[in-house]
Amino acid sequence: MAELRRDMVRDDWVVIVTNRALKPKDFPINRNGVHAEFDSSLCPFCEGHEQETTPEIIAFRKEGSLPDSPGWLVRTIPNKFPIFRLEGELREDEQGIYRRYNNLGQHEVIIETPEHDLQLHQLPLEQVELVLKMMILRYNTLAADKRIKFIQIYKNKGLFAGASQGHSHSQMLGFPIIPESYRGIQEYYTRTGKCLLCTMIEEERKQRERVIFESDYFLVLCPFASRFPYEAWIIPKRHQPHFADLQAEEITNLAVLLKKYLASMLASLQDPSYNIMINSAPVNTTRQYEYHWFMEINPRLLVANGVEIASGLYLNPVAPEVAAGILHSELAKDYD
Amino acid sequence: MAELRRDMVRDDWVVIVTNRALKPKDFPINRNGVHAEFDSSLCPFCEGHEQETTPEIIAFRKEGSLPDSPGWLVRTIPNKFPIFRLEGELREDEQGIYRRYNNLGQHEVIIETPEHDLQLHQLPLEQVELVLKMMILRYNTLAADKRIKFIQIYKNKGLFAGASQGHSHSQMLGFPIIPESYRGIQEYYTRTGKCLLCTMIEEERKQRERVIFESDYFLVLCPFASRFPYEAWIIPKRHQPHFADLQAEEITNLAVLLKKYLASMLASLQDPSYNIMINSAPVNTTRQYEYHWFMEINPRLLVANGVEIASGLYLNPVAPEVAAGILHSELAKDYD
Repeated sequence: MAELRRDMVRDDWVVIVTNRALKPKDFPINRNGVHAEFDSSLCPFCEGHEQETTPEIIAFRKEGSLPDSPGWLVRTIPNKFPIFRLEGELREDEQGIYRRYNNLGQHEVIIETPEHDLQLHQLPLEQVELVLKMMILRYNTLAADKRIKFIQIYKNKGLFAGASQGHSHSQMLGFPIIPESYRGIQEYYTRTGKCLLCTMIEEERKQRERVIFESDYFLVLCPFASRFPYEAWIIPKRHQPHFADLQAEEITNLAVLLKKYLASMLASLQDPSYNIMINSAPVNTTRQYEYHWFMEINPRLLVANGVEIASGLYLNPVAPEVAAGILHSELAKDYD
Repeated sequence: MAELRRDMVRDDWVVIVTNRALKPKDFPINRNGVHAEFDSSLCPFCEGHEQETTPEIIAFRKEGSLPDSPGWLVRTIPNKFPIFRLEGELREDEQGIYRRYNNLGQHEVIIETPEHDLQLHQLPLEQVELVLKMMILRYNTLAADKRIKFIQIYKNKGLFAGASQGHSHSQMLGFPIIPESYRGIQEYYTRTGKCLLCTMIEEERKQRERVIFESDYFLVLCPFASRFPYEAWIIPKRHQPHFADLQAEEITNLAVLLKKYLASMLASLQDPSYNIMINSAPVNTTRQYEYHWFMEINPRLLVANGVEIASGLYLNPVAPEVAAGILHSELAKDYD
């Protein structure tokens, strides 16, 4: 089980797992080494190994196939270590000066393909669409529970992105609180009455220095204050607070774009570890309309150093204007 | 050169280097591999290689030895890539909706020993004291410049802590702005009129679950809301806002404690990468007295994953109560 504890110094929350303690040898860094291949014969995410995972929540399956058996296309399971449960109510608890919440929440894994050796950008277009549709389905289901206040979808690919499984998958965390990290969006709306992301799209189109690509429905750019070298955002051009607000034609366009962008980013940066994060509006709360979801894709070429961890000030050695140029050239080669 | 850019979404600052662009092969991850030894014959921090570094700012030296030549004990140089300069004034600049500051600031490297093969905890006690005294000397010098508002001292040891040199060293960044990351300390003072860290010391002594060790002048503990597995803080028991407020006997006690604690932490966790951060009050500003410096020592057993990067909510798989028990047993074996 886990609990949310209040970090009084940093004025934020931390998720602490209380019922187990990893020993040094349990950490992915020590277990696998950096370039070690994850052993596919032992992979619980592969088709045929369904009994080795937690029972599935839902799957897109071939007709006639049964839950927790082969025949699925995209499969969603609870995280193996169920640190959160969607049971009971949020309880705050005080211990002297300290505050914490119980383990209310949800943590799911979306297995993106039955095949071990295909990464997200290598999947057929229809399969990438299915992955996005599964995310939207689960997003809507979690958002329907009034106790969930924020849903983070994320993907860890490779050891330097925090992955512990090689098989292509994404994760989804439903939190009972709203994190502080997007407060600038709300602050901007309060101050100007305008959506920050819509304003950024307008500005980036004008300045034209950081745009990597523009499709019918999305703008791909390196943000002005990129925290990571070669960081890129895919922003829907239409104002939409929630990731699950995507319409059918937008989903298809996003699948095409994501597949192309990932392939060209990985080619131009020598196949680094990377994270994909879908940053969306809070749910079950007022002031959702002010948000505008975006997808953040960060190759992980650096490990956070002491000054970044302590002060929170990221040091990015590649200006986004330079990164956008490099990423644009590679994408332009390939995109049709 | 670098600039500070305002991250409007996250309401924080990012340091962007604008005059060079690292290519994938330049990143430490790709250059060295994880377990690669840094090549000592090429090390610019070794005694005898002084000409390969930027000219020294100051060094503790054997009598009669000359600047930028052998004979030093601890040596401070400007960072090789001088992204900041302590020249001119802070200038804010707007580009459409975006805001940025120029490159005002300071970035220094403190080489902790002339010997390549000794790490901080392996240095003689007097040498560790000299390192602390150098940090205090440089802290005071930087704090005397009215343009500097915050000084972060930090150490990156090992690839998973963001290090790019194997030779034992620390770094120091002087910023022209105050980062957001310690706002909880100020907020607590505003609300209660009390120092948060002093209150935490009192509370931890009462609860006794997370204390690793107590010396004459310091408390070593795993904080209630530890962001990292086996995170530990060394907090001075006497209220002191600035790291440079340390008195002579406290410096000696800290050197003993740091050396012992590092040795036992490294032994119990199989020699991980780690960061040391000295988190101190802002300088040249009002409300300094509310702060209380502390040293944060984080073994780096995990790489930040997508949810942590995006939402800012850290996932810590080792409860601080468990970590404190393990770290205490190891330290108790050794400490006299």
